[in-house]
Amino acid sequence: MLLEVSPMAQIVIMGNKSSTVSPPQMSDSTDPGNPALLDASKLRITHAETLKPLQPIETLRFGQAFSDHMIVATHDPVTGWSVPEIKPYGPIALDPASSCFQYGGNVFEGMKAYLGPDGKARLFRPDLNMRRLERSCARLALPPIDGDVVLELVKRLVEFERRWIPKESGYSLYMRPTVIATRPGLGVIASDHAMLYILASPTGPYFPQGLQAVSLLAVSENVRAWPGGTGGHKVAGNYSPGFLPQKAATQQGYDQILWLFGEDRRITEAGAMNFFVVVKRDDGDGA
Amino acid sequence: MLLEVSPMAQIVIMGNKSSTVSPPQMSDSTDPGNPALLDASKLRITHAETLKPLQPIETLRFGQAFSDHMIVATHDPVTGWSVPEIKPYGPIALDPASSCFQYGGNVFEGMKAYLGPDGKARLFRPDLNMRRLERSCARLALPPIDGDVVLELVKRLVEFERRWIPKESGYSLYMRPTVIATRPGLGVIASDHAMLYILASPTGPYFPQGLQAVSLLAVSENVRAWPGGTGGHKVAGNYSPGFLPQKAATQQGYDQILWLFGEDRRITEAGAMNFFVVVKRDDGDGA
Repeated sequence: MLLEVSPMAQIVIMGNKSSTVSPPQMSDSTDPGNPALLDASKLRITHAETLKPLQPIETLRFGQAFSDHMIVATHDPVTGWSVPEIKPYGPIALDPASSCFQYGGNVFEGMKAYLGPDGKARLFRPDLNMRRLERSCARLALPPIDGDVVLELVKRLVEFERRWIPKESGYSLYMRPTVIATRPGLGVIASDHAMLYILASPTGPYFPQGLQAVSLLAVSENVRAWPGGTGGHKVAGNYSPGFLPQKAATQQGYDQILWLFGEDRRITEAGAMNFFVVVKRDDGDGA
Repeated sequence: MLLEVSPMAQIVIMGNKSSTVSPPQMSDSTDPGNPALLDASKLRITHAETLKPLQPIETLRFGQAFSDHMIVATHDPVTGWSVPEIKPYGPIALDPASSCFQYGGNVFEGMKAYLGPDGKARLFRPDLNMRRLERSCARLALPPIDGDVVLELVKRLVEFERRWIPKESGYSLYMRPTVIATRPGLGVIASDHAMLYILASPTGPYFPQGLQAVSLLAVSENVRAWPGGTGGHKVAGNYSPGFLPQKAATQQGYDQILWLFGEDRRITEAGAMNFFVVVKRDDGDGA
């Protein structure tokens, strides 16, 4: 299902502001027993003072360039979700004791916005990404988040940063909704504070060589996913343990890792891509 | 082995400055092929403008209060480690695409400084914490770090924040060295940028009820550590997957979780504490 990104409506323009970190706009909720829900219709906009030049597409590497703006909203256990804001892309400031640094309670999604020949921007089945985002937040006991509202915000940012969507085939504007745990304190408990932000990154093929064959090193001594773990969720901490095995694979001349699990070496994942098997049968009938 | 915290020597005083985030002092290294090592002897000090009042010890909860200062040093792949700095405790500002948010590549240590009847501050076998910190960094492919230098910095901060060490039995100044992955970018690769910071938190008993018996819920459907995983290292991402099971245990009236693994339900860890078994034999001879 390709979903069209609808044009923006009723957006409050907040005028120019520098890109330093500012306290989030609190929601309108004044009822302490009724924390505010995330509400895309309240989206505010703070424009960047200057816009960056678009990068030539042949220099685009995955996830290295970012558009001029991002969307940010914060969750407080008493007041709930703040008013979401489109603001200049820039650093976020957090207490060093925050849960995201200490206990890694972060989740994310990745999805691409494409520009069609008809000039419309499209996302591919983003509702499924949003359902997974909701499940990931629940798995790490983050504050609940409404994926439909996050999707509405993603679409707003796609439309707002429309000039950043590359027109060339194989290129796209990669959208990265991220939820990080911002409870300040070292107690090993669930984070009741969180920050949602959405980044937009113009991007080309993930592999520098493009859609060529990649070589995989089968790895079983390090395990990417295991029963009772978090491999079925898109949580930050799933990824960094793969960095060292990936370094070793690269040094041996392989592009990526084929992750195995268990004594019968079941395939759990293949590096940064999906994994399909095509079987050619003796009678010539592919299955 | 109790290690005495030695008095400070040759510390450069930098004068007062507000607690906003400032770019780190670069190291003296001007040789691009020779990144600077972390060097405790170059420690600089920026004093907080005002000092916080000490908190009454009966109000101390684990990891909620922090001293006036922290130590920060940053690693850049070209210039190496910056000059470490004692600076006012305050927020750190990072690119939202940083590896620590996206892929959870953070590690930490926890150790307590006690004030002895002789007035000396002591750490308990901190060298073993530092060896584990080195192993944790290596496991997540973070830039290598010299644990002996980190320990020297921990000792400097203990001495600098000496007034924060509670004198009462059972209380201590909890030291939290943390290394976070700060490479900005969404590529799923090892972070060649990092930030080391050390926090000091006056603390009492971990459990509000003190050294009373705690109840444990044995959990096997969620798995805390597994062969080929990171359970043997102190990495941030080990902890947040335990938040949801801990919530469920709390709701059932248990204090903590006894983590089991495998069909024979081996014990891998017990919540936020060590786990020992005392066996009383039929012949009355404890083992």
